[in-house]
Amino acid sequence: MDRELEIPLEYSRISIIGVGLIGGSFARALRANRRDKRWTITGYDTDEASLKKAVELGVLNDYSLDIDAVVKSAHIVVIATPLSATEKILPKIVQSLRADAIVTDVGSVKGSVVAVAKAVMGDKIKNFVPAHPIAGTEQSGFVASFAELFEGHKVVLTPIAETDKQACQLIAQLWRRVGANVIELDVAEHDRIFAATSHLPHLLAYALVDDLVELQARGDLFQYAAGGFADFTRIASSNAVMWRDICLSNRVALLDSLALFSDHLDKIKDAIEQQDGEKLLAIFQGAKEARDRFAKTRNKLKNEIE
Amino acid sequence: MDRELEIPLEYSRISIIGVGLIGGSFARALRANRRDKRWTITGYDTDEASLKKAVELGVLNDYSLDIDAVVKSAHIVVIATPLSATEKILPKIVQSLRADAIVTDVGSVKGSVVAVAKAVMGDKIKNFVPAHPIAGTEQSGFVASFAELFEGHKVVLTPIAETDKQACQLIAQLWRRVGANVIELDVAEHDRIFAATSHLPHLLAYALVDDLVELQARGDLFQYAAGGFADFTRIASSNAVMWRDICLSNRVALLDSLALFSDHLDKIKDAIEQQDGEKLLAIFQGAKEARDRFAKTRNKLKNEIE
Repeated sequence: MDRELEIPLEYSRISIIGVGLIGGSFARALRANRRDKRWTITGYDTDEASLKKAVELGVLNDYSLDIDAVVKSAHIVVIATPLSATEKILPKIVQSLRADAIVTDVGSVKGSVVAVAKAVMGDKIKNFVPAHPIAGTEQSGFVASFAELFEGHKVVLTPIAETDKQACQLIAQLWRRVGANVIELDVAEHDRIFAATSHLPHLLAYALVDDLVELQARGDLFQYAAGGFADFTRIASSNAVMWRDICLSNRVALLDSLALFSDHLDKIKDAIEQQDGEKLLAIFQGAKEARDRFAKTRNKLKNEIE
Repeated sequence: MDRELEIPLEYSRISIIGVGLIGGSFARALRANRRDKRWTITGYDTDEASLKKAVELGVLNDYSLDIDAVVKSAHIVVIATPLSATEKILPKIVQSLRADAIVTDVGSVKGSVVAVAKAVMGDKIKNFVPAHPIAGTEQSGFVASFAELFEGHKVVLTPIAETDKQACQLIAQLWRRVGANVIELDVAEHDRIFAATSHLPHLLAYALVDDLVELQARGDLFQYAAGGFADFTRIASSNAVMWRDICLSNRVALLDSLALFSDHLDKIKDAIEQQDGEKLLAIFQGAKEARDRFAKTRNKLKNEIE
């Protein structure tokens, strides 16, 4: 384990592009690690108030509103912006990056970011490590960030053929330092899995609330909604810009996933239309058992962590 | 307020048909009301172990496995079974009911129960008060019941033209005694509202988990699922028999609601296909704002109750 914690001492300057929920929490978590005092953390954001606050709190050493100035001396650059911003920032900063700088991102979709990185990074692509921390809340911004956000959560790295093994290991080690469990997936596999388990549920929750807003105009519907509804639609309170970006960036896998879901929904719809109680019960019972198993595994994992 | 708490003293014998989560909690709550010692509560269920347990705990005074014996001397009969059972029980017990017995149910769908009641109750229909407590958990059975289940929750009564006003008031008073807020809705309006805010979300959650079970076979998908997924699909752990019954009983309103939802889902799908970020953002932002308002109202209500 100690071997895993080794990050070459010459890496000491980290730049965080986008000091929001994810970037802010990452910086806080590095600071909170008492064994590890080496980091000089510099921030860039479009919201100067957040940057000032982060410096006041000692989370950042300094900041600049000039992204190139923030990037140019960094050993490690963490791009923690919404996907569409990440895809615009990568081409802008390539020239300013040190030749040996390691770059990583936090996007929920990996295919689109990797495509941009391949197109613009040239030889520096070997030091780009695509990453996706599976952590977040419905809140956003630096104000919502906290050092424990990643503890016990998964971070998926999706290295490509060009990725340097040492760069990948270093980013893995950094994520472990902030408490995360690091796993690796193929880029396309990642996007397919998260389309099904995350992007599609968000889309359904948004669609349902959008639907009810229209019905709401005809009467105060929401007042009758119970706890199940509250849980089901909580994710529709997520950052709309972030989810627009995710839906567009993971368009192909998400549309595939939606088509598959629609088939299953149609199967249930047909059973209702045909009043086929036996079929309905089999589907619901199967889903209930799967969901119960999922809850059991999840609780077990939680208990192991606590 | 005190006037509302008056229930004629001659009403003292309550029979509960189905001593599960709802029926058990209702009996426990009546017992927990210290101002109110009058009740003799008798239970019927197909699960004798639950009935024995309820008597041991003093929740029931006694029980019988003969439904007619349980019903025949009752002043008030509460049918707290799944919908399909309620629709079978009503015709069976009509002959055994006292002429002045007040009958109520707890079904999540009202149209189908009312149709059966109208068909079989004859003159006794005037003392039938259709009711739907908006309370529950993913657990079921007497073992999961607790006296506080209804506190601060809504109970919807859907009286029809034939319903006696006094019978309706008495059932409303009973629900208030166990801590619920009673409201009245038209039968069809009730079924339309709950199709949209409750039955449809359950159906979507079941469909999504059913979908993932199939994908799961190709790889361990669920391990990547995060908190959003857990919340979104929690309702897929609900009792499968109960939800089969609800889907079949509220077939028409639910299929209407599903069709409307599908239109909204298609709108989002089209925006993704056309890569129309502006449209997507508008939909997501509108849904987020509506969901945030809902959460605010809900928290406000919770704080007022606590």
